[in-house]
Order: sequence, then structure tokens, then C-alpha cells
Amino acid sequence: MDRPLSSSAERRIRESFSRQGFMKKLGARIVSLGAGTCELAVDFDESLTQQHGYFHAGVTATIADNACGYAAYSLMPENSTVLTTEFKINLLAPATGPRLVARGRVIKPGRTLVIAQADVFSVSGAGETLVATMLATEICLKDKEDR
Amino acid sequence: MDRPLSSSAERRIRESFSRQGFMKKLGARIVSLGAGTCELAVDFDESLTQQHGYFHAGVTATIADNACGYAAYSLMPENSTVLTTEFKINLLAPATGPRLVARGRVIKPGRTLVIAQADVFSVSGAGETLVATMLATEICLKDKEDR
Amino acid sequence: MDRPLSSSAERRIRESFSRQGFMKKLGARIVSLGAGTCELAVDFDESLTQQHGYFHAGVTATIADNACGYAAYSLMPENSTVLTTEFKINLLAPATGPRLVARGRVIKPGRTLVIAQADVFSVSGAGETLVATMLATEICLKDKEDR
Amino acid sequence: MDRPLSSSAERRIRESFSRQGFMKKLGARIVSLGAGTCELAVDFDESLTQQHGYFHAGVTATIADNACGYAAYSLMPENSTVLTTEFKINLLAPATGPRLVARGRVIKPGRTLVIAQADVFSVSGAGETLVATMLATEICLKDKEDR
Repeated sequence: MDRPLSSSAERRIRESFSRQGFMKKLGARIVSLGAGTCELAVDFDESLTQQHGYFHAGVTATIADNACGYAAYSLMPENSTVLTTEFKINLLAPATGPRLVARGRVIKPGRTLVIAQADVFSVSGAGETLVATMLATEICLKDKEDR
Repeated sequence: MDRPLSSSAERRIRESFSRQGFMKKLGARIVSLGAGTCELAVDFDESLTQQHGYFHAGVTATIADNACGYAAYSLMPENSTVLTTEFKINLLAPATGPRLVARGRVIKPGRTLVIAQADVFSVSGAGETLVATMLATEICLKDKEDR
Repeated sequence: MDRPLSSSAERRIRESFSRQGFMKKLGARIVSLGAGTCELAVDFDESLTQQHGYFHAGVTATIADNACGYAAYSLMPENSTVLTTEFKINLLAPATGPRLVARGRVIKPGRTLVIAQADVFSVSGAGETLVATMLATEICLKDKEDR
Repeated sequence: MDRPLSSSAERRIRESFSRQGFMKKLGARIVSLGAGTCELAVDFDESLTQQHGYFHAGVTATIADNACGYAAYSLMPENSTVLTTEFKINLLAPATGPRLVARGRVIKPGRTLVIAQADVFSVSGAGETLVATMLATEICLKDKEDR
């Protein structure tokens, strides 16, 4: 269950998300936000596939990266911006449709570095399957605008 | 310098690449292929950006992942297919345009697992800047079609 | 809570552990074993430190690696052995004494590759602090003795 | 070829290394230091093994981590200290004796974060074999003593 987020932090994240042209291109959306958590989703489309017809690992990594980044950003001060410095992803099962959901959470907050983890699930009427997990390092850049 | 690739291996990789809907969506293309190497490129577009206007880390990761995957696939037998099982990427500098180039190479071949590394460069008239590096594990699935 | 382990699997793991000269050198011990889980511990000693007097990251990584490896091995068939192919560790806080505990669990079993995660805690009378987390890939080598 | 290091930076690294109890325990030593590079070595001993009699992955990771850390530290200012925040290692081949050598180099310097890579080789009279490669993030803590 998400811990509630201040309205200013929520607005800051939604504005940042909306400035990411790549989110629009993927059709990705914010499902929920909390203090230290972020859930994103993207629907299956032929234009998001790898050679076997599953979601491309790049799509899985992209939404996991953003779920980690915004989970971290939710804990950062006003007038700061966030960048991913590194991530590692293990691809556990084919990422099938109709929907991919990434759930990010902060596992270690910090003033400069924030460590987050995201699990990515393939979601269908039949339930959820874990398809990937990511460990990421996010850096807080202070006194810098997020644009 | 790339070591030459057999024409059948080259055809196999190009066909696999062309079946990836996500490559088309990104406008990514194969620059060169060799035995154990693969270079891919993608041009800057507003639709590929993160919130500061650089290439999204997801784009950087996607082409690095594919450069590793096809570098590995170039050494795999006919009638096999390739999957990425995990990768780690360090993002070293802002990924600016006008072009992003990923150069993948096999650092350890193997019958089941192939380990590859890719460096990603931001390329402009002024030269090249290293913006990311990836270490990836690719698995060879034998007697399985790449579609 | 650990799921119970067959006595033959438990014997196999304990014998493997006892053949690792490095475990003896570190003074590491098995705290508990289950089907898909493994907990290891090591006590603080001056000979295990980095330059600031904390446990060296190499010690943290070693017991996390083994906790992942034996969690994975617990699910592998008789007459097989296990090797780590890669791992990634995020160091979250100084690893202080008096004791370091690594708790490994399988997050994705598989016939060839098993993915595991380990959390490492600094344990004292005052409680536990998460000091590191690891994601690892373990490979099952069939028809091969674990020695 | 190593770029030369100032004598004060070299002294700072050698003192830091000598304060690491774990280096003494492993019998590890500095082979060479440069500006942005560090080479370490450790000799085979039964007390450093995993269950098959090779060097334990924890030993490989430890010297690779230190080679990255001191390569990074060589570029950091006086009156600072270094910590590893994360690393990823791919284990490529059995780490056999009689000697293991880790060669670290900075791939991206920075004021706060320094990214380094280390290759680890098994060295014998017959030559060298690459047995592992690591990508690591090092953080510079300013105005903090390295003890």
C-alpha cells in the first residue's frame, strides 16, 4: 500500500513524466504514486516487440527504470532533479501482454544517492507473472530544475 | 575492426532485427556486423527523450542490449535463438544527439551463455562521447526458431 | 519462514559448504537452510575489515554470493553442481559488527539458470540494519559432481 | 601503461590498502598504481577456495572491487575517502591458480561518482586467462579521512 505523497511532490512527478517524450511514444502511464513508490503500466502493441513477439527487454527496462526513478524522486526535495546513474535488470520470463506493470520502491533513501528496486509483471485476466526485477541507483541533483 | 561474418549468419541477424517492432519504432538501424560484434545507431527525436531533453536511458539501454544480443547471436549456431537474461548499465554522461551509437562485442563466448559488453556513444560533428557501458549475459536456445 | 528441505539436499549443501576453504577462513557458518532459502552469518574480526574498520565489501559480497548460491542449489537435482555466473550488489550502509547475516532466496527457479536475491544485515543487540542487497544468476551444471 | 601518480596520492593509497585487514588476510598485494589505474594480485591458497577447489568468487570480487576502488581513489582530491556504492561482476571462467590478478581502470571520472572497470586474470606460466570482469561505482566523500 502506497504511503501518501504531498500534492506538490505528486505534481512535480507528473509534470516530469509528461515531459518525457519517450513515455508518450510507449503509451506508458502512471498507475499510482506514493512516498517512495511508483507504479507504471504500458499496454502491448506490435511496435513494442522483440523478435519473438514479446515486449522488448528495452521496454521492460524503460518502465522499470522510470518506476525506480520516480519512486526515488518522490523522496527528494523541491528544486532538485533526478538521474539514473546505473541499473541492473534480470529478465525472468517472457514479457507477454496484454499489459506490463512496473512497481518501483525505494529500498535505501539518501541525500545524494537513492537505491530503488522495481519488479515488472506481465498482467492479464489470468493474473500476474513476475517477468523482471531491477536494482537501480538514482542521484539527486540539488538546485537544478527538472527540465 | 570487425571480423567477417558468414552470409547466413548476417542474414539471420538482419531478419531477426527486422522482426523487432521496437527497432522500427525507435528508428534504429544496423551500422555494421562482424563475428562477435554489432554496431547499432539511432537518431535523436523528441519522442525519444527523458525530462531534460536527452535520449531516455531506456533508449540507450535498448540499443546497448540489442548490440550485445546480436554480437552474441553472430557466434551462435544455425537453428538457435538468443535471449538476454540480464544486463547492467552504467550511465556516464547525458546522451545528447544528434546520434546515439552502441558498439557491442563478445567478451566471453560459450555454448549456453555468452557474455557481451556494449559501449554507447553520443556522436556529433564534434566527435564522440562515451555515454554508457553495459555488461550483459545472453543465452543460446538451441533447436528453437528465432521468431 | 523456510520451507523444509529434504535431508539429502541439506547434506549436499552442508558438504559443499564445508569444502569451501574460504568459508572456514572467514569463519562463516550456515544459520538456516530451506527449499529455496539460505541464511549465512559471519562474526566481526579485524582481519575482515576495509580501511575504515567496517566489514570489507568483499566479505559482504562473499556471504551474499554464497547465500544466493546455496538457496539456488537447494532446488537443483541430485548429481548436479552450482556456479555463480554473475551478481550485482548495492552497498547501502556501513557493514558494522558484531555480526553480518546474509539471507538468500530464489526469486526465479529454472532448469539451467536460477535467479536469487540476498539481503545482508548488520546485526547487533540493537537490532538489524540492511547493509546490502544482491541479485545473482546461478547456473546448474548437470551430471557433474560438486567437488 | 600506467600514467604516473603523484607521490602523495601513491602514499595515500598504500596507507589505505595497509589499513584493510582483509587484504592482509587474503595475502593480496599492490602490483602497480597509476593515475586512474590499479593492479592487485593474490596467490592461490587452499584457504581461498570454493567447493571445486578454484578461487572463491568472493576472492575474485574482493580484489576486483579494490582494484576499482583504488583506481578511482587515485583521481580523488587530498582529504577525501572512497567507498564502493555498487558493483556487478560477470564470472567468465574458473579462477585457477597459481595467481589471480585484477586490473582496474577508471572509465569515467567525476567529482562525486567515479565509474571503474576491472578485469581479473588467472595467471600462470602458460599465460593469462580472463576469468571475470567488473563494473563498479565509487563515491568520493570529501573532507573525510580515509580511516
